[in-house]
Amino acid sequence: MTTIQAMGQRAKEVSVDLRKLTTQQKNQALLAIAEDLLAHTREILQANEQDLLLAQENGMSPVMQDRLRLTAQRVQDMAQGARQVAGLDDPVGRVLDGKTLPNGLRMQKVAVPMGVVGMIFESRPNVTVDAACLCLKSGNCCLLRGGKEALRSNQALAGIMRRAVERTGLPADCIQLLEDTSREGAREMMRLNGYLDVLIPRGGAGLIRSVVENATVPVIETGTGNCHVYVDASADLDMAVQIIFNAKTSRPSVCNAAETLLVHRDVAEAFLPMAQQALAEKHVELRGCPRTMEILGRHVIPATEADYATEFLDYILAVRVVDSLDEAIKHVNTYSTGHSECIVTNDYTASERFTQEVDAAAVYVNASTRFTDGGEFGLGAEIGISTQKLHARGPMGLRELTTTKYMIFGQGQVR
Amino acid sequence: MTTIQAMGQRAKEVSVDLRKLTTQQKNQALLAIAEDLLAHTREILQANEQDLLLAQENGMSPVMQDRLRLTAQRVQDMAQGARQVAGLDDPVGRVLDGKTLPNGLRMQKVAVPMGVVGMIFESRPNVTVDAACLCLKSGNCCLLRGGKEALRSNQALAGIMRRAVERTGLPADCIQLLEDTSREGAREMMRLNGYLDVLIPRGGAGLIRSVVENATVPVIETGTGNCHVYVDASADLDMAVQIIFNAKTSRPSVCNAAETLLVHRDVAEAFLPMAQQALAEKHVELRGCPRTMEILGRHVIPATEADYATEFLDYILAVRVVDSLDEAIKHVNTYSTGHSECIVTNDYTASERFTQEVDAAAVYVNASTRFTDGGEFGLGAEIGISTQKLHARGPMGLRELTTTKYMIFGQGQVR
Repeated sequence: MTTIQAMGQRAKEVSVDLRKLTTQQKNQALLAIAEDLLAHTREILQANEQDLLLAQENGMSPVMQDRLRLTAQRVQDMAQGARQVAGLDDPVGRVLDGKTLPNGLRMQKVAVPMGVVGMIFESRPNVTVDAACLCLKSGNCCLLRGGKEALRSNQALAGIMRRAVERTGLPADCIQLLEDTSREGAREMMRLNGYLDVLIPRGGAGLIRSVVENATVPVIETGTGNCHVYVDASADLDMAVQIIFNAKTSRPSVCNAAETLLVHRDVAEAFLPMAQQALAEKHVELRGCPRTMEILGRHVIPATEADYATEFLDYILAVRVVDSLDEAIKHVNTYSTGHSECIVTNDYTASERFTQEVDAAAVYVNASTRFTDGGEFGLGAEIGISTQKLHARGPMGLRELTTTKYMIFGQGQVR
Repeated sequence: MTTIQAMGQRAKEVSVDLRKLTTQQKNQALLAIAEDLLAHTREILQANEQDLLLAQENGMSPVMQDRLRLTAQRVQDMAQGARQVAGLDDPVGRVLDGKTLPNGLRMQKVAVPMGVVGMIFESRPNVTVDAACLCLKSGNCCLLRGGKEALRSNQALAGIMRRAVERTGLPADCIQLLEDTSREGAREMMRLNGYLDVLIPRGGAGLIRSVVENATVPVIETGTGNCHVYVDASADLDMAVQIIFNAKTSRPSVCNAAETLLVHRDVAEAFLPMAQQALAEKHVELRGCPRTMEILGRHVIPATEADYATEFLDYILAVRVVDSLDEAIKHVNTYSTGHSECIVTNDYTASERFTQEVDAAAVYVNASTRFTDGGEFGLGAEIGISTQKLHARGPMGLRELTTTKYMIFGQGQVR
């Protein structure tokens, strides 16, 4: 048995204990985590400093270094996150359905922990704390595998959390960090059938693809967002400018940012120059279809087929003029990754058709795609945004870390 | 693009139309299927006869031939099944959750079709009709891949259903049957990412394992049931005899049949001879632990470790005497496939602990494991029994063939 298999087996053993914890016990452990993170800030920052030195030696980009960097404030934020999770409703034990069958069997469908949740993520060390806290509150053991470049930070954080939960009487092994950050280690984790109940990757498109391609355990695909804003013929054009400006530029690096603007031909001549002017403030590069180029002229780069399929995550926007709502819906359903899609319209039928016919986790009428987020949706916390259709779709909070169990009470019934 | 990819692409195209169907349109199509199956009974039986002749030439066992065989009665049953699905509530369009956010955004979480559902199954041709009808009612296109030995029967059934739905104005391609029944064809189907939203295998352990091992599309694992009956120290022993007799012998070949009997040591001497006598009526072979053998003597075969892990699907029962409830729970959580588990007890604490601590889709107190079934649970129909924790757990009906979509209505909100 390899180290990773042994960790999986241990997680499965410990999951039996975790299933039995009361909300109070879990909250105590979360508050202990918050307390200990603060008390050990210096230890955390020292470990992080080592990661950063190595990263600088290896020529990591300043943007990536910023993702990796922890500060006293960021440690406080993590502690505050743990406290916030303690304050959320316990997702375990909710009775979701129930009835008495004709033969007198009483049945209940109850929310229960998944068991063992695996997470593979990249450079931000705060995911280590977020994931551990959400898994703990939902009664799950977690197996965490962060990026190589954050190993020392993650080791410090996991060590502190393990000691904290142990101090409140929980098994330390309900939080386990893989110290093997090789590709082979990740592959092995993806194939821990029998131990891992679900694997959630969080990171770039390459990581997600590798997990989908290689995993044999159940996976929740997260995070890729090729989001569209469609400006209908009946749109309030000022509103449409505000929405595309917000959706594209408020935070271009996140998955709910817009990547393509579709405009109905009837308003293209009026709207496109307005949009161009607004977006110019943030130096957004436009990549347009031939009709867009006719209207906006030489400031626009010709869009390729690939541009429509690309999640730029940058100040770049593909633009296309469409002949009809039908063409807009077809474009969206062709290129969308199923994350967040928006129509700006004042036409009842158009709003109905867009919301019904577009296939995505979140479909907006007259609002920015940027709202697709666990916090905005009121979930309290978020472990990721699912772009698949199985189990969870859209922002995933604590409830999405539970499964169900039928409990059936009889008096000797046989079939 | 291969044939199978082209079918996937076509299914995805057609899924846009299927999403828009009203309940009435779907029910009309289902009733047309029922009607046409009956009207073409002769064509179906002729095709089936060809499959059977080939099967006999290839030396197929009589049991397997019976699974493959269609009769006028079985065709009537399939038609009745289609009518029954027409009578069930439409799972699409249910508003599952909703609220108005502080910024005035109105959000709804609505049940919507998955899109394209793939099914890989074995010899019973009735699965072709069941699966197509359940997918249709839930607004999904289906891609069906049955066994090689049932190809002609499945072609006849799929052809009739395609013409029937077309007659009511639906696209025939909402039901597609793969005629390539090779292993390579199945593998290709398992990797139709971008086209298949979910793949559900139905069949033996080998098929399920192959799908879990090879699929890159989201899978719902179904059907393996290594189910236990635990007779607690406080059990009503007569009730316990009835339950184990029913759970083991009423239909040994199905996944909710019991495979192992666990008995608390305090009642082992009284109970085991009673159970042995009852089970002897059906010539059940007992494979026991050393203590079982001491009590029951030479009629029992020694159980191996492998016996406890085996889904016999036959008149064979593993038997083990345990020292405590803890040992029983540990045994179940070690060997269970997470399907259905039962405790026979009159002890409150034991019933509480068993239902809370055993990790399975359905946990019974004082009732046979045989009740885990879509029909028995009142789901109306069943597309399979999930033994995984993602998306659906236990019997899956129409609701489990839907996903969700957030629809969000604003007045220009930006973040």
